[in-house]
Amino acid sequence: MTNKYKICIIIIVYCTFVCSYSVRNDNCDLDDALVKEIASYKNVTNKIIKDIKNELGSRMYNSFSEFIDKYGARPSGSKVLEDSIDHMINLTIGSGLNDVTTEEVEVPHWVRGTETLEMLQPHYKKVAIIGLGPSISTPSKGITAELIVVKTFKELDSLNKEDVQGKIVLFDEHYTSYGETVIYRVQAASKAARKGAVASLIRSVTPYSLYTTHTGSQHYDNDVPRIPTAAITVEDSHLLRRLFIRKNKIVLKLKMESTYDTQKSRNTIIDLKGAVDPDKYVIVSGHIDSWDVGQGAMDDGGGMMISWFAPVILNHLQLRPKRTVRAILWTAEEPGLVGAAQYLKLHINELDKINFIMESDEGTFEPLGLEVGGSKDAVCIIAEILKLFTPVDKLKVSKNPGSDIILFINKGIPGASLMNKNDKYFRYHHSEADTMDVENIDDVVNCAAFWAAVSYVIADLSVDIPRH
Amino acid sequence: MTNKYKICIIIIVYCTFVCSYSVRNDNCDLDDALVKEIASYKNVTNKIIKDIKNELGSRMYNSFSEFIDKYGARPSGSKVLEDSIDHMINLTIGSGLNDVTTEEVEVPHWVRGTETLEMLQPHYKKVAIIGLGPSISTPSKGITAELIVVKTFKELDSLNKEDVQGKIVLFDEHYTSYGETVIYRVQAASKAARKGAVASLIRSVTPYSLYTTHTGSQHYDNDVPRIPTAAITVEDSHLLRRLFIRKNKIVLKLKMESTYDTQKSRNTIIDLKGAVDPDKYVIVSGHIDSWDVGQGAMDDGGGMMISWFAPVILNHLQLRPKRTVRAILWTAEEPGLVGAAQYLKLHINELDKINFIMESDEGTFEPLGLEVGGSKDAVCIIAEILKLFTPVDKLKVSKNPGSDIILFINKGIPGASLMNKNDKYFRYHHSEADTMDVENIDDVVNCAAFWAAVSYVIADLSVDIPRH
Repeated sequence: MTNKYKICIIIIVYCTFVCSYSVRNDNCDLDDALVKEIASYKNVTNKIIKDIKNELGSRMYNSFSEFIDKYGARPSGSKVLEDSIDHMINLTIGSGLNDVTTEEVEVPHWVRGTETLEMLQPHYKKVAIIGLGPSISTPSKGITAELIVVKTFKELDSLNKEDVQGKIVLFDEHYTSYGETVIYRVQAASKAARKGAVASLIRSVTPYSLYTTHTGSQHYDNDVPRIPTAAITVEDSHLLRRLFIRKNKIVLKLKMESTYDTQKSRNTIIDLKGAVDPDKYVIVSGHIDSWDVGQGAMDDGGGMMISWFAPVILNHLQLRPKRTVRAILWTAEEPGLVGAAQYLKLHINELDKINFIMESDEGTFEPLGLEVGGSKDAVCIIAEILKLFTPVDKLKVSKNPGSDIILFINKGIPGASLMNKNDKYFRYHHSEADTMDVENIDDVVNCAAFWAAVSYVIADLSVDIPRH
Repeated sequence: MTNKYKICIIIIVYCTFVCSYSVRNDNCDLDDALVKEIASYKNVTNKIIKDIKNELGSRMYNSFSEFIDKYGARPSGSKVLEDSIDHMINLTIGSGLNDVTTEEVEVPHWVRGTETLEMLQPHYKKVAIIGLGPSISTPSKGITAELIVVKTFKELDSLNKEDVQGKIVLFDEHYTSYGETVIYRVQAASKAARKGAVASLIRSVTPYSLYTTHTGSQHYDNDVPRIPTAAITVEDSHLLRRLFIRKNKIVLKLKMESTYDTQKSRNTIIDLKGAVDPDKYVIVSGHIDSWDVGQGAMDDGGGMMISWFAPVILNHLQLRPKRTVRAILWTAEEPGLVGAAQYLKLHINELDKINFIMESDEGTFEPLGLEVGGSKDAVCIIAEILKLFTPVDKLKVSKNPGSDIILFINKGIPGASLMNKNDKYFRYHHSEADTMDVENIDDVVNCAAFWAAVSYVIADLSVDIPRH
């Protein structure tokens, strides 16, 4: 993992979820002509939505389901990810849109091997476990060590180093929100290693568990030893804490195997060329890779699919907006926005051509609106556009909407992520439970209809979305 | 598994959940003196509840948690079950109640070995699996066969035998309620074998899944070959059905190991001897065994614990009712009410001494009231008693409340099971998710308080609970 990836992980963690704020900008003073122009799109947006809801959307959903069922989990660097990218390229061409290109990306390829955790004392118990990528392996005989349980980094800091030295540390952290709590996943290993621990465990970062383990990325600091690190279920984390509080001596045996190298992957770029300004882009995006568990249907199969669908269906409906609608299927988001970082690097001299950048990576449940990052004027225009989609008209202003697109928003490009009724998102996130069962057909179709129609309006508007 | 166990399983399935009906008997005409007598218990029931809620209940909860955390799953026939029985005996004596006996029971001892299911075609996928007890093993090299997927027994019946012969059958049954749906778990193997299948799978019997497998008992008919049988997750069941509907040839490789013998276990009997009629019994009960997954905290650790607690706490509070309050910790409920059947057999000549029999085996969530089986007069008295516990005063009349106690209710003994807010019960049932996390301290304490107080009143009343 290069420094680039590490920085990206930290950006995801600290910004995507923590820094957003929810302030509706009600002080807009848009030009009347622009307001009228936006309102004039009502017929076309209604038609797009109607056509998609009628039949085209359910066909897309079937393609989505076939894709997910065929490839399942699509981890960064794997052959199945590349096969799934080829599938989407063929699907695009098969749909009649031929403007598909790919850009090569070198991506992390961390492969989980056998992982087991056993409690040997005070009594024997198998403990479900999932390694956090890219954890190192344990020695082949495993690590057998005493466990200490803390709730917070602060609690660990308060301990003497000799009390931690040679032990396994479990962070039984309290879940408040993903944004706040995920720092335990990201930093557990290095925080524990700094105190001399030989391995670290966290309670899975989720608000609800049916003995479910949740993986995700973590980050090794360079100035401390790298130690194996994994998540256990909420239930076992509570159990181990109770045993610890009762003064039991807890001895665990941890075995983890993994390999790590880099592989070639690709960002996939699908263009519906603009009728007037083909060199100006409205980007709609989602990531095609997933973690190596479940089917990657929610994270981010659904977001990838509705973004892919936007230019494809506009082309099918013979709706060609002024600017290019570009769908990007990012590769290797999960190990740290790797595909997006490569796109930014390759296109760094043409960022002014990106008029607006959109991302769906927080579920395709019932659509609610958009979480927008950009200037006050940008927010005002998007707010006006959202009036076309009532009741899907919620607007949340955020410094950092989305995950991949944060890299672009931070460069001053306005953008938005899909707001949807995703209050149960973190039940499934990065777990075996991220399957097609999460993806309700009506919700996905409604998201796809909104996504295509809103991207059409932004791409066709007489004015660019203003920057800061 | 003997015929006795088979009959018991069928009783559980068809009666416990299917046959109950919810009719409040409002046509009571109790003697005024009895109504007044019942009302006079308000002070004592208030005191019992207050004392338990104040501190005694949380101490009990801590004992419960320590018990569950120490022993975890306690399958029929296992050493850990016997150790856990010894623990409860010692806990009873330690609490100052010495009247503890055990009665030997020969119980099934089915031990799950390694179980794996892999999809080999149309592409490779590991499929989570849990064998249904007491499934036979596959040959050691496993069973590799094509899959057919049906939704109902009727759909299987409609197929030609040659289309099923040599294949694995998956029942992707629709979940309506446990009572209706569990017949797929119980009968899948023999229904499939009757058509020539070599193994059967069911979708786990649950209304909600996070890729969770649920085990449970099943029944082999004597007139068809015994075939291996297991449950998969709701998510994989849906996936396999989608692949099947899309005309994919699905080939599975199933490996299952298990052993089966019988062992000695014990019903545990704890008496608070009655002050006036020590030979008359009000029984409170729950089962101490569990399935071999999770911690068996909900099914039935909680029910066992609050039943154990009733005579213990009444003794501690120096409340000795007229009749004996007998707690029974049934053994081997899960393989088919084995402990309860043995108790019935041993005590068949003294059933007239059982005044009332209570059971908690459907969760110890927020208490609601009682599900009562018995004569109209019995129901009327219980309804009157429940008025002491408002708002825990719901009454549901049922032909077959409970599971173990059905054997006694069927002999004409009046009884009741604990009604509680258990609408999420089947998310956890027979799965790894049945842990102490399900057992909220306030709910368990409130159940325990209600259970002890209501059993006290019934045991102390001037009149016996009338039979049919």
